[in-house]
Amino acid sequence: MSNDWLTQQLRFLLELDRLKSVFRQSRLIHTDRMENSAEHSWHLAMLAVVLAEHATEDIDLMRVVKMALIHDIVEIDAGDTYIYDEQARQEKARIEQKAAERIFGLLPKQQAAELRTLWEEFEAKQTPEARFAGALDRLQPLLLNYHTEGQMWRHHGVSSEQVVRINQVIAAGAPDLWTYARQLIRDAVERGYLAP
Amino acid sequence: MSNDWLTQQLRFLLELDRLKSVFRQSRLIHTDRMENSAEHSWHLAMLAVVLAEHATEDIDLMRVVKMALIHDIVEIDAGDTYIYDEQARQEKARIEQKAAERIFGLLPKQQAAELRTLWEEFEAKQTPEARFAGALDRLQPLLLNYHTEGQMWRHHGVSSEQVVRINQVIAAGAPDLWTYARQLIRDAVERGYLAP
Repeated sequence: MSNDWLTQQLRFLLELDRLKSVFRQSRLIHTDRMENSAEHSWHLAMLAVVLAEHATEDIDLMRVVKMALIHDIVEIDAGDTYIYDEQARQEKARIEQKAAERIFGLLPKQQAAELRTLWEEFEAKQTPEARFAGALDRLQPLLLNYHTEGQMWRHHGVSSEQVVRINQVIAAGAPDLWTYARQLIRDAVERGYLAP
Repeated sequence: MSNDWLTQQLRFLLELDRLKSVFRQSRLIHTDRMENSAEHSWHLAMLAVVLAEHATEDIDLMRVVKMALIHDIVEIDAGDTYIYDEQARQEKARIEQKAAERIFGLLPKQQAAELRTLWEEFEAKQTPEARFAGALDRLQPLLLNYHTEGQMWRHHGVSSEQVVRINQVIAAGAPDLWTYARQLIRDAVERGYLAP
């Protein structure tokens, strides 16, 4: 193990500190501020650990948790894109590829390739692990939005039709979580958190 | 799968949102504020993923990552205890046991027992996974302290002798990370970040 190898690993790990300053379009439930992408990634990894049994298909939990941990790292360069901003979402793919190149590229070559491949897999949603991690990545902000009385939905003028359309991918990874989410969306409309 | 079962899991997961408001005695490198325990837990899990090969003994990485994710959950009730405040550390065990009872107890019984047992294992440091996770839990704040010019060490008047004594447990989980940490501590003294 050369000292350079460890130096590369630590350079990557220190760079990750920046994800704590990337803010999302979700408000925290128990305190009055926006959520950052580092704490979101932790929360998502905890959803994976606790809700694993709800995955439709057999999953390798370690791969799901790794995806949850790394899925937003590219935002260090690319920033967070609001899920309901459909124009911005089309542009983001190219910017995120460049970010992945730079940030995973800080690691020793083999490790860079491994984590980047896992991130690409998460993005493509073609495997059971990616579908389940993707489902949780939609469910988590839905939970925060509902439990903050739809503050950010109302702020951005999001409708229940948009919420259903964007989040129905949850069904592909975890059908019973989608059943639950639909109840939550209906209830949000009734309570006036979300436009019908 | 009863609806109650999922309701209990979600109650636990929503409660976790509170960890984003527990602040530690580490300053972030890239922005001027203290680190919270949720983003610390994410960073620690990333250290585990990237530095796994430096563990002394054979480890089950999934168990190490789960420990990293859950190790600070009790702080939702117990708060963060500064590692160099040795009196507070003696009192904290009892308070944290009570917190573990309440917070893991939100989960369905079997899952509560599984995560609590894992947390106890992390605390006891008697297994290879707990020793490695514990080593990383010391290394991460050391890295933040060094890369913020020892701001919090200076604020609390911590000496290099204390830093060596508290952090030498890193050697038990990852000897080459301890070699690196000792270089960092010596360098911190030379640069005036840390009292000799």
